Amino acid sequence: MIKFCNACGNPVEHRVPPDDDRSRAVCASCGAIQYQNPKIVVGCLPVWEDRILICRRAIEPRHGLWTLPAGFMENGESAAEGAAREAVEEAHARVEITDLYTVYSIPHISQVYMMFRARLLSPEVSPGRESLEVRLASEEEIPWDRLAFVMVQRTLRHFLDDRRQGVFVPRFGDIRPPDR
Amino acid sequence: MIKFCNACGNPVEHRVPPDDDRSRAVCASCGAIQYQNPKIVVGCLPVWEDRILICRRAIEPRHGLWTLPAGFMENGESAAEGAAREAVEEAHARVEITDLYTVYSIPHISQVYMMFRARLLSPEVSPGRESLEVRLASEEEIPWDRLAFVMVQRTLRHFLDDRRQGVFVPRFGDIRPPDR
Repeated sequence: MIKFCNACGNPVEHRVPPDDDRSRAVCASCGAIQYQNPKIVVGCLPVWEDRILICRRAIEPRHGLWTLPAGFMENGESAAEGAAREAVEEAHARVEITDLYTVYSIPHISQVYMMFRARLLSPEVSPGRESLEVRLASEEEIPWDRLAFVMVQRTLRHFLDDRRQGVFVPRFGDIRPPDR
Repeated sequence: MIKFCNACGNPVEHRVPPDDDRSRAVCASCGAIQYQNPKIVVGCLPVWEDRILICRRAIEPRHGLWTLPAGFMENGESAAEGAAREAVEEAHARVEITDLYTVYSIPHISQVYMMFRARLLSPEVSPGRESLEVRLASEEEIPWDRLAFVMVQRTLRHFLDDRRQGVFVPRFGDIRPPDR
């Protein structure tokens, strides 16, 4: 909750500005408006031969559960650059991003996930600071009952289905509570 | 530029927090961190028979130039809901969002555009507050030399190419300066 103006340090009011239709944090002194908007999480599904890179989380939420490398997109980078950066940070994995594969909105937490398909450039991977362990998992080795997030489960399912069909179809959709 | 903490109103320092690798606005008093992340612009390409809904901008930037309905995604909505909302706001257009079509990162302004294909549910459209006029344009009527943004030009080109081919292929990519 925003209480103070980040431009001048004085208290804000929460009200609908002129020419707007929803409540914003408006500075009572200087008039600056602090907007709050959804955040983008970028990640990838890195593949080496028939195996997929997965990471076991060393951080909350979902400490100890498995995920695909992903994290908040940063200012000044493209979505694909952010997805490749997360693979380095979480698994010391060098990847080539090939295409955007799944896009999920999660409205109740104001996040949008953008997951790319990627080629691992080398099978040498190891845990980064936010991972307990990393693994190149075959389809049979995916820990379906210990995945951290619904978007990971859906992205993996789509990928494995599409791989069987021999054609990869981008997906978009929403994830609503209590699914997350 | 963030100068003050929006949690306690005291000055922030710009420095790299522990366990991070880039500079953030860190409160020198309470320690709260204000993250800045890319913003999402959601929009759509609404179609009625062989015509496309375009809007002439009544606001800066690019006042007087033509665009597709689009704007900043808001907290608490899905990307598709935001795209449909923008069509209402800019052209009083009721649309059914069909699928995610183009996704462009624009790193130098820290924005990601997500443009959907959409069906107009009625040809009755009229300018909203941010539009000077709106038009259902045939391919020949697209004002190519008076489009507001590169992402609009690319999305329209892809759509018209794909329509000729009879198959719509989602696109993702980056837009770098001086293109925007």
